[in-house]
Amino acid sequence: MKKTKIGVVGVSGRMGQEIVKVIEANPRCELFYPLHRDEKWDSKKAAKVDVWIDFSSPEALKDVLKRAAEHKTPVVCGTTGFSKKEKDLLSQYAKKIPVLWSSNMSLGVAVLNEALKSLSAISHFDFQIEELHHNRKKDKPSGTAITLQENLEKAVQKKLPEPVAIRGGGIFGVHKIYSMSDEEVLVFEHTALNRTVFAKGAVQAAEWLVKQKPGLYQIRDVLFGKNKA
Amino acid sequence: MKKTKIGVVGVSGRMGQEIVKVIEANPRCELFYPLHRDEKWDSKKAAKVDVWIDFSSPEALKDVLKRAAEHKTPVVCGTTGFSKKEKDLLSQYAKKIPVLWSSNMSLGVAVLNEALKSLSAISHFDFQIEELHHNRKKDKPSGTAITLQENLEKAVQKKLPEPVAIRGGGIFGVHKIYSMSDEEVLVFEHTALNRTVFAKGAVQAAEWLVKQKPGLYQIRDVLFGKNKA
Amino acid sequence: MKKTKIGVVGVSGRMGQEIVKVIEANPRCELFYPLHRDEKWDSKKAAKVDVWIDFSSPEALKDVLKRAAEHKTPVVCGTTGFSKKEKDLLSQYAKKIPVLWSSNMSLGVAVLNEALKSLSAISHFDFQIEELHHNRKKDKPSGTAITLQENLEKAVQKKLPEPVAIRGGGIFGVHKIYSMSDEEVLVFEHTALNRTVFAKGAVQAAEWLVKQKPGLYQIRDVLFGKNKA
Amino acid sequence: MKKTKIGVVGVSGRMGQEIVKVIEANPRCELFYPLHRDEKWDSKKAAKVDVWIDFSSPEALKDVLKRAAEHKTPVVCGTTGFSKKEKDLLSQYAKKIPVLWSSNMSLGVAVLNEALKSLSAISHFDFQIEELHHNRKKDKPSGTAITLQENLEKAVQKKLPEPVAIRGGGIFGVHKIYSMSDEEVLVFEHTALNRTVFAKGAVQAAEWLVKQKPGLYQIRDVLFGKNKA
Repeated sequence: MKKTKIGVVGVSGRMGQEIVKVIEANPRCELFYPLHRDEKWDSKKAAKVDVWIDFSSPEALKDVLKRAAEHKTPVVCGTTGFSKKEKDLLSQYAKKIPVLWSSNMSLGVAVLNEALKSLSAISHFDFQIEELHHNRKKDKPSGTAITLQENLEKAVQKKLPEPVAIRGGGIFGVHKIYSMSDEEVLVFEHTALNRTVFAKGAVQAAEWLVKQKPGLYQIRDVLFGKNKA
Repeated sequence: MKKTKIGVVGVSGRMGQEIVKVIEANPRCELFYPLHRDEKWDSKKAAKVDVWIDFSSPEALKDVLKRAAEHKTPVVCGTTGFSKKEKDLLSQYAKKIPVLWSSNMSLGVAVLNEALKSLSAISHFDFQIEELHHNRKKDKPSGTAITLQENLEKAVQKKLPEPVAIRGGGIFGVHKIYSMSDEEVLVFEHTALNRTVFAKGAVQAAEWLVKQKPGLYQIRDVLFGKNKA
Repeated sequence: MKKTKIGVVGVSGRMGQEIVKVIEANPRCELFYPLHRDEKWDSKKAAKVDVWIDFSSPEALKDVLKRAAEHKTPVVCGTTGFSKKEKDLLSQYAKKIPVLWSSNMSLGVAVLNEALKSLSAISHFDFQIEELHHNRKKDKPSGTAITLQENLEKAVQKKLPEPVAIRGGGIFGVHKIYSMSDEEVLVFEHTALNRTVFAKGAVQAAEWLVKQKPGLYQIRDVLFGKNKA
Repeated sequence: MKKTKIGVVGVSGRMGQEIVKVIEANPRCELFYPLHRDEKWDSKKAAKVDVWIDFSSPEALKDVLKRAAEHKTPVVCGTTGFSKKEKDLLSQYAKKIPVLWSSNMSLGVAVLNEALKSLSAISHFDFQIEELHHNRKKDKPSGTAITLQENLEKAVQKKLPEPVAIRGGGIFGVHKIYSMSDEEVLVFEHTALNRTVFAKGAVQAAEWLVKQKPGLYQIRDVLFGKNKA
């Protein structure tokens, strides 16, 4: 079996390190091009990469996409903190190459985003998203909560109150969706136990993305097929 | 607008009383034939009933179905504690009239049964169903937990450990589905706040059932359409 | 056995009705003087009351205390939404008669206020209080959350972030205390299932208060003795 | 300042490694005698150890205690799976040296064991302990749940139903105490986020134990003083 040749941008970062570990433990993948920050670009080597995984920074995104597009190589991007400008960039390049971006690469959060569609059947309920993270996390609400909120508002066809955010200790990442009526309460809750969760999702996404046509994808599409909504 | 004429079997029971309240508060419905236990059957009046709601007892089921079938009247049945015999009876009559039976009539539990289908995408996780009820509840696990278990085993295509049951105080009814991997935990949780939740679901089901063809339905079908799975 | 003669102020209100039910179900108590809003005051009858229970309104408080003090009758007060003025009034009358005020009369919340003292041993943790209530509740955070916050700040000797409040559906009342470090998370959580919880606490407090000396008490003192902290 | 000289039994085990890391990060402590399994005993070096930490195995316990007692050195023991025989051994040696044993060394679980004393005020409630752990954990219920159960039964003066155990994924360790009445539910819940939690507790206990007299201690005593109950 031919192994999927993976290039990793920002390999020395915290997430880069996790991704390397997951690739090395995965017999179907090969860490083909680990690219360090400020490392010189080797176009010849890059041409042989099957798929890039990038968790570096919003600033690096443009370069990553440009270089990947040179060789029509798909890109899995897990960077958060994107403004409209970066999101437009993703859409633009998605016309030429397969681009997968998710604010949260975990399988469980992808399932959460799928499961919340069932809430459209009880759109008359009240809804509230809540997230808990460690005390070093500065952005509020989390990117994942923002995505959940967008998808939930689409599902129940109404504007919802802002997500609630709690910060404390070393909580790795908890996201909850409350659905509440006078008679019942539904809670969908996701807890990330460690950082590996995102690396595993990204690598699974990379293996899937090499078989896709150009387009903008989400981790949800890996599990449930391209989402038309 | 023509109101839906509802017949209620076992109108003096606890659930019967709740159903009466919900019907009376619903401008689209009329409490047309409240039938007390041991009350003599009025076939002429029964002929005009649009739909029956029955929360009485497994023993009464046969009579209810037989009489409803006389006039081709749909039946919503919320009785629990059915053996295979009663379930066969439901299937048999469902060939002649629309029959809707659910071990739990709440909309939220119907959503839970729909949402759990998304767990098929992470079927390699570990799963566990848990339920909590008041200390007067004798059956373990609850009928709702059994249905969730059946649907979950179908979704993830494997045999799962028995549901866990906790009994105490006046807890009205909590059901949880745990999905657990080495990296993350998903919990889907439903809490019933009061008894009205079942009455509201039953009446909503009754309004929907009058427009259906003969067949065996679940509360889930009211929200999401007839489930082929 | 001599029954405790209870006077209830605002007997026709929602909480007044609950209190009447609990008194009537309690063989040690007697509903001696149910006082309706705007009912004329009968000083002779009031003289025989053993203890007053008042859930009426901040505005009524002054009158209630004044009249109770005439006959040295203890007062259990469960009204919320008090400003500093009303709290001063309670303290002032507490020099003459036993006065018990709590923003939440449930036994469980009293236990929560006691249990949180143990958190002083891990005061280096991060803390966060959260509360969930139905969508008709306007004040944020709840009076109970404010009291928990005061007691928690006293226990851990530091200023904490504001309580977080969620509103939705018919949630009767949930309060949580999160204690979070890099290695572990403790959650103390209280859920009120119905309104009776407050009435039961108030009546238990009333039975206890008739045996106390003048002073300002809390529901916690009924369970754990007068709190010196 | 003189550093606390710590000896670690079973230094190459998983917990041993964690303890080494925590000692090395603690400026008040020194990893003085890291003892590997089957390493020859150096009595001269052992004489200078201020306190032993042992997470090795029930089998090793006797040797550890015997050797520590030779030099009157306190022992912190975090091994679980003890039978009555090992517990008797601990009690016996506790007459000669300070011995601290807890089935769970985390501060949070110690707080939980303290906080549950407040439940004695609502001993008429129903109670249930629940624990969740990863799918490699074989013993059911966990040692921590057993200790919580013993302490809870002492607090509420009645026999309680067996703890409920859930196994799945990589859940590090969750323990819950449910207190339930017809009107309210209290849940005290502890979640361990990682293994460091036990190492940190053990080292904090070691620093405290060097100042104690002979006796059998628990991690609770480190936080709240010797428990007489």
